[in-house]
Amino acid sequence: MSKVKVGINGYGVIGKRVADAILLQDDMELTGVTAVNADYRIRVAAEKGYSIFAATESRQSMMKEAGIPVEGSLKDLLKKVDVIIDCTPKGIGAEQKPIYEYARVKAVFQGAERHELTGISFVAQVNYEEALNKQFARVVSCNTTALCRVLNSFNKRSWLKRVRAVLLRRGTDPWESHRDGMINTFIPETKVPSHQGPDARTVIKGLDITTMAGACSHNLSHVHYAMVETKRPIGLDELRYALWEEPRLAFVRSSNGLVALNSVIELMRDLGRPRNDMWEVAVWEDALAADERETYLVFQVHNEAITVPENIDAIRSLCGLEKDGAKSIAKTDKAMGILK
Amino acid sequence: MSKVKVGINGYGVIGKRVADAILLQDDMELTGVTAVNADYRIRVAAEKGYSIFAATESRQSMMKEAGIPVEGSLKDLLKKVDVIIDCTPKGIGAEQKPIYEYARVKAVFQGAERHELTGISFVAQVNYEEALNKQFARVVSCNTTALCRVLNSFNKRSWLKRVRAVLLRRGTDPWESHRDGMINTFIPETKVPSHQGPDARTVIKGLDITTMAGACSHNLSHVHYAMVETKRPIGLDELRYALWEEPRLAFVRSSNGLVALNSVIELMRDLGRPRNDMWEVAVWEDALAADERETYLVFQVHNEAITVPENIDAIRSLCGLEKDGAKSIAKTDKAMGILK
Amino acid sequence: MSKVKVGINGYGVIGKRVADAILLQDDMELTGVTAVNADYRIRVAAEKGYSIFAATESRQSMMKEAGIPVEGSLKDLLKKVDVIIDCTPKGIGAEQKPIYEYARVKAVFQGAERHELTGISFVAQVNYEEALNKQFARVVSCNTTALCRVLNSFNKRSWLKRVRAVLLRRGTDPWESHRDGMINTFIPETKVPSHQGPDARTVIKGLDITTMAGACSHNLSHVHYAMVETKRPIGLDELRYALWEEPRLAFVRSSNGLVALNSVIELMRDLGRPRNDMWEVAVWEDALAADERETYLVFQVHNEAITVPENIDAIRSLCGLEKDGAKSIAKTDKAMGILK
Amino acid sequence: MSKVKVGINGYGVIGKRVADAILLQDDMELTGVTAVNADYRIRVAAEKGYSIFAATESRQSMMKEAGIPVEGSLKDLLKKVDVIIDCTPKGIGAEQKPIYEYARVKAVFQGAERHELTGISFVAQVNYEEALNKQFARVVSCNTTALCRVLNSFNKRSWLKRVRAVLLRRGTDPWESHRDGMINTFIPETKVPSHQGPDARTVIKGLDITTMAGACSHNLSHVHYAMVETKRPIGLDELRYALWEEPRLAFVRSSNGLVALNSVIELMRDLGRPRNDMWEVAVWEDALAADERETYLVFQVHNEAITVPENIDAIRSLCGLEKDGAKSIAKTDKAMGILK
Ligand SMILES: NC(=O)c1ccc[n+]([C@@H]2O[C@H](COP(=O)([O-])OP(=O)(O)OC[C@H]3O[C@@H](n4cnc5c(N)ncnc54)[C@H](O)[C@@H]3O)[C@@H](O)[C@H]2O)c1
Ligand SMILES: NC(=O)c1ccc[n+]([C@@H]2O[C@H](COP(=O)([O-])OP(=O)(O)OC[C@H]3O[C@@H](n4cnc5c(N)ncnc54)[C@H](O)[C@@H]3O)[C@@H](O)[C@H]2O)c1
Ligand SMILES: NC(=O)c1ccc[n+]([C@@H]2O[C@H](COP(=O)([O-])OP(=O)(O)OC[C@H]3O[C@@H](n4cnc5c(N)ncnc54)[C@H](O)[C@@H]3O)[C@@H](O)[C@H]2O)c1
Ligand SMILES: NC(=O)c1ccc[n+]([C@@H]2O[C@H](COP(=O)([O-])OP(=O)(O)OC[C@H]3O[C@@H](n4cnc5c(N)ncnc54)[C@H](O)[C@@H]3O)[C@@H](O)[C@H]2O)c1
Repeated sequence: MSKVKVGINGYGVIGKRVADAILLQDDMELTGVTAVNADYRIRVAAEKGYSIFAATESRQSMMKEAGIPVEGSLKDLLKKVDVIIDCTPKGIGAEQKPIYEYARVKAVFQGAERHELTGISFVAQVNYEEALNKQFARVVSCNTTALCRVLNSFNKRSWLKRVRAVLLRRGTDPWESHRDGMINTFIPETKVPSHQGPDARTVIKGLDITTMAGACSHNLSHVHYAMVETKRPIGLDELRYALWEEPRLAFVRSSNGLVALNSVIELMRDLGRPRNDMWEVAVWEDALAADERETYLVFQVHNEAITVPENIDAIRSLCGLEKDGAKSIAKTDKAMGILK
Repeated sequence: MSKVKVGINGYGVIGKRVADAILLQDDMELTGVTAVNADYRIRVAAEKGYSIFAATESRQSMMKEAGIPVEGSLKDLLKKVDVIIDCTPKGIGAEQKPIYEYARVKAVFQGAERHELTGISFVAQVNYEEALNKQFARVVSCNTTALCRVLNSFNKRSWLKRVRAVLLRRGTDPWESHRDGMINTFIPETKVPSHQGPDARTVIKGLDITTMAGACSHNLSHVHYAMVETKRPIGLDELRYALWEEPRLAFVRSSNGLVALNSVIELMRDLGRPRNDMWEVAVWEDALAADERETYLVFQVHNEAITVPENIDAIRSLCGLEKDGAKSIAKTDKAMGILK
Repeated sequence: MSKVKVGINGYGVIGKRVADAILLQDDMELTGVTAVNADYRIRVAAEKGYSIFAATESRQSMMKEAGIPVEGSLKDLLKKVDVIIDCTPKGIGAEQKPIYEYARVKAVFQGAERHELTGISFVAQVNYEEALNKQFARVVSCNTTALCRVLNSFNKRSWLKRVRAVLLRRGTDPWESHRDGMINTFIPETKVPSHQGPDARTVIKGLDITTMAGACSHNLSHVHYAMVETKRPIGLDELRYALWEEPRLAFVRSSNGLVALNSVIELMRDLGRPRNDMWEVAVWEDALAADERETYLVFQVHNEAITVPENIDAIRSLCGLEKDGAKSIAKTDKAMGILK
Repeated sequence: MSKVKVGINGYGVIGKRVADAILLQDDMELTGVTAVNADYRIRVAAEKGYSIFAATESRQSMMKEAGIPVEGSLKDLLKKVDVIIDCTPKGIGAEQKPIYEYARVKAVFQGAERHELTGISFVAQVNYEEALNKQFARVVSCNTTALCRVLNSFNKRSWLKRVRAVLLRRGTDPWESHRDGMINTFIPETKVPSHQGPDARTVIKGLDITTMAGACSHNLSHVHYAMVETKRPIGLDELRYALWEEPRLAFVRSSNGLVALNSVIELMRDLGRPRNDMWEVAVWEDALAADERETYLVFQVHNEAITVPENIDAIRSLCGLEKDGAKSIAKTDKAMGILK
């Protein structure tokens, strides 16, 4: 069977990681990536040998003049691919959808787009099958992906009564921290409840959840506090097992020196992870708590990386490369080096 | 009636603020403060004309040689005062208590000491009367004080069913941020539930509360997220009124540009507050939310300042200067410039 | 003699401080301030009783609707004042100048405007007399003001041969640190030499200086490193005397615990300075060094505050209230609480 | 010829990187590493299959109980190696030297030790030959290494007259940023001149240099500002060529989006560098400047990584594996992936 041809539209934080991840899969190939500028990010893509297309016609000549070996425009790329991964900034994906429809390609959108754009909000371990052979799906945001992974372990055991969570976002992403950051402050989100709760319900139907959010003065990743009311008392041991057994969750322990966001990222550096990425949700094992009514969890969400394996699985689901979500997850995880 | 004579043992973040606040009261006077070193902080106290005592005998000569006009040691200070405000670092207060007992002075301890040290954990608007004419009381920590002020408005209306809160601490205090800080990270507290929940129960008896905590990479103040389950649905209007009516809470609004910790502190600067202190808990009015089961609040807690008026009221209660808590609060607030 | 009537155009970081400083002078009065919005900053001005004008006609109704007691527009304010202090953002001052000319008022501009706008770049202790009875002057930027104050002590003794300085700017101002900051990085300025060197030459004519610059991830103030080549070897004692004798420089000592930007600002808080402002350049006395060829200095520049007394002196010079710069400086310093 | 057997004493920031780098060389092998604790860092080493030894006898049982597969103590490791790389914290290396002498192994020390400990301060491209077949050498600190690399390009052309540099250190290293950091401040070093100037003279003899230093609130790497007086005017072109031709310097350009420390580190992430390490000194090409008297440079120094290739070369020099420094450098650089 020939490999699925994949293009990336928007080569930023998410786009460049999905591109790299596709190269690791044996059932897909990277046809090309688009860009709108000529900075170091796209220059490295060129050095790696990725085929580069201009996202818009107008950018093509500018990029060429700047020495980028542009092979055409998005239109040209769309002619060559089976599926496009839309990794453009918020709101642009929605504008692009008609173009993808016209080109008759399948497309995966990212979390900043609205659920309604595709009607399918995707987290592989929850609802892989929902996207099977469809044309479009949306991989939900990093925050929603993390909530869904963690809560799936409760939900599939019918433990869930009600979830309350406080989501603390990193101030901005590392690559743009010189211009889009904050200094010595904290910004509470005044939209209460925050949108992530309803967003999680587009994946785990019927979830009773309320989230509040805020942004911190660091850029290393998000951190979530979750208080999960359960239908019956859940013991620490069964909680630990349920989380351990769930894909793409990993335990970290303060007793091993993993006491803060920076030490977990240092672990990723020591493990040789590309870009020190952590694709798993890191749950603090020694902070797990439970009483007769609820369980308490705190976990780190590496926002730059966590949705990357989801995009790979979404391609497989949309293209019908694999019918069984668990098998796709296992395949992706093996290829990327995500181990339990 | 002669003024109550007050001494401060430990001239740090809290001690220096309590000293300044005492000077503003007409029923107390500042007899002196102790120190253990000769740095700029105690030099300013000397310039202001505060009487300075060495916390220990051994420090006396060192401080004198460094040019600090030391008038004696703690022992000497204790002979001159009616009440001592112990503002020493965690754990030292407990060691000092026998000395205060021996000297037959009343004493107020701070929040890092354990409840059992005095048996009275004090937040003026909740339990002023509990400390009346007693020898010892403990003003609770900044975090617990804030929780008690906010929850008192629910509790006195018998609204409270169960409280869940996430408390985000500043990384360290501004004055020591060059040596005791953190950079670009977040430290989740692995003790879950965190100690502030049980601590709040020493003030508001029978409170059903669970807290989780963590520390951020900023130094400007704490921020709390509270999800308060209520016995009956509480409307936004009655919630707003209950909070508005409660002493030492103040509303801030994002719509006025007060969108983050730094903008609220800038307001304190513009208001001419000493040291840009905010003695009130600042509740984001436009982030208040309520549904049929619970209410949601986010508030800023200026940890350096918030317990200062509490210390003044605690003096009044211990010394029996005023029997009515509400009157003491009003008097303190007027003297310090805390307005509704 | 009646007081000089002063208006402030642009009520931001600099404008609000100059307004407050004018109130402390006995030879000037604050006629009003302009604003373009209705946020907490201008609300506090209203609460303080400052007369408020809309910077533009179009903003007037918006501000009124938002409850700000607007008394008119800039045009109305200009009719009432002798001198306007233009504290608008970069470039806007230049646009306003024709309006001030038309209104026949004197005007002081700030450091982001170009020297050519007024032809007079002002630092009181260097060239107060240059602005005497003129219509327009520019108070130079915080960085240039600091350099000029420090180097004046060398220049007036004919010590100066050549100056090299590295200027490290705060990332952004505190009030806007939630939206205009940076996280965990440092931005080198690629314009080398940076503009502050030439700018200092508009004040101290003939100065041989080269500056390089960069921006740090803190918001507390700037810090400068200066290496000053001298015509003859300067001893540490005469260097110390020269700096001590110079107005608006103050020594800080690490040995007193003043070891970093935050500790010096904490000193300002302890001293009761409004908004913890430091109007002086703080020179680290125990970091002063000298060898047979040059002297080495490191100093802190509180960018929010340092040009405020300069604005007061500039008013006095333009309006001819005082002919002797030293007398104006002494008068301003006494009124504001700047002591040697 | 059999491979040189290398041990690492002290598995921290430097030790773990040198260990990984040794594995990439074909003329050396990693015999083992020592540790004093059982945290995630040494657990990853065990997972990678590195042989682990306890740094002290007393730690051996503790580490074993914690599940670390300890193969013996430092004493045992020393019996198996030809050369030990001492990467212990400041001052401990000096204590270890007699032990290495007794074991008759060669040893490389790091920059926190004093020059006098070995009499040879090593930067490969400057003085590789000085360490040839000696028993001990010291790889100088990250700051000194960077200065020596940059200034070597001037020195070997006899351009140098006098160097002035301001060195801005990162606040702390990423892995310990939760406990050893700073928040929103800057610490000027009060020792002026700072020690790096004299330290550079132990490598480049006769260098006329003065350095000043300070520490910033970020953890991403150091940045240096250098003002280099030259014996004759140096044009920008020849400056650029001299730097380009020098090993282990790399140009970065703001015009390519590399505008701050974080963007250069993002480039390392995109390049797939392990731990996002940058072994080269990154010189901002578009900030290079020159006038008739001096040249001006600003460069980024990735302190965690920059001395790693130096350690490899130092092994080769001490063990006489290669007589020609340029060849060793080329070999190391090829193995590690350092390209021009
Ligand atoms: N950054 C995160 O942490 C994160 C995490 C999960 C999901 N997401 C989602 O991924 C999507 C992309 O976010 P990101 O963080 O990668 O953004 P980004 O800004 O890093 O990358 C977007 C890229 O798209 C390019 N671009 C802009 N306009 C374009 C156009 N018209 N056509 C093609 N390319 C264009 C930009 O140049 C940029 O390189 C968003 O939906 C976001 O919500 C982001
Ligand atoms: N910093 C806060 O935000 C905050 C808020 C609320 C309550 N508190 C509580 O206030 C108490 C004091 O905390 P702080 O932040 O003011 O600490 P701090 O370190 O700022 O001040 C403590 C002072 O006590 C001095 N000291 C040390 N040993 C002493 C001794 N043996 N005798 C006398 N003085 C001694 C120190 O030199 C220092 O000046 C603690 O219980 C703390 O939990 C602190
Ligand atoms: N912030 C500093 O550290 C600092 C230090 C020294 C000098 N300066 C100089 O002072 C000047 C003002 O800077 P700032 O930091 O106070 O800026 P700011 O942004 O804090 O304040 C500018 C104010 O002007 C208002 N404004 C905008 N457009 C206006 C208009 N058309 N008419 C009237 N008001 C208008 C803004 O709303 C704002 O309140 C600049 O020249 C700046 O370079 C600033
Ligand atoms: N961190 C940097 O940026 C940097 C850069 C260049 C040079 N250096 C130099 O490298 C040396 C090591 O610094 P580092 O940053 O790697 O320190 P580090 O603290 O990261 O690592 C030191 C390691 O040695 C271990 N250790 C402590 N005592 C020991 C003992 N008695 N025996 C064996 N191991 C022991 C510690 O557990 C730690 O793992 C210092 O000389 C330092 O100046 C550091």
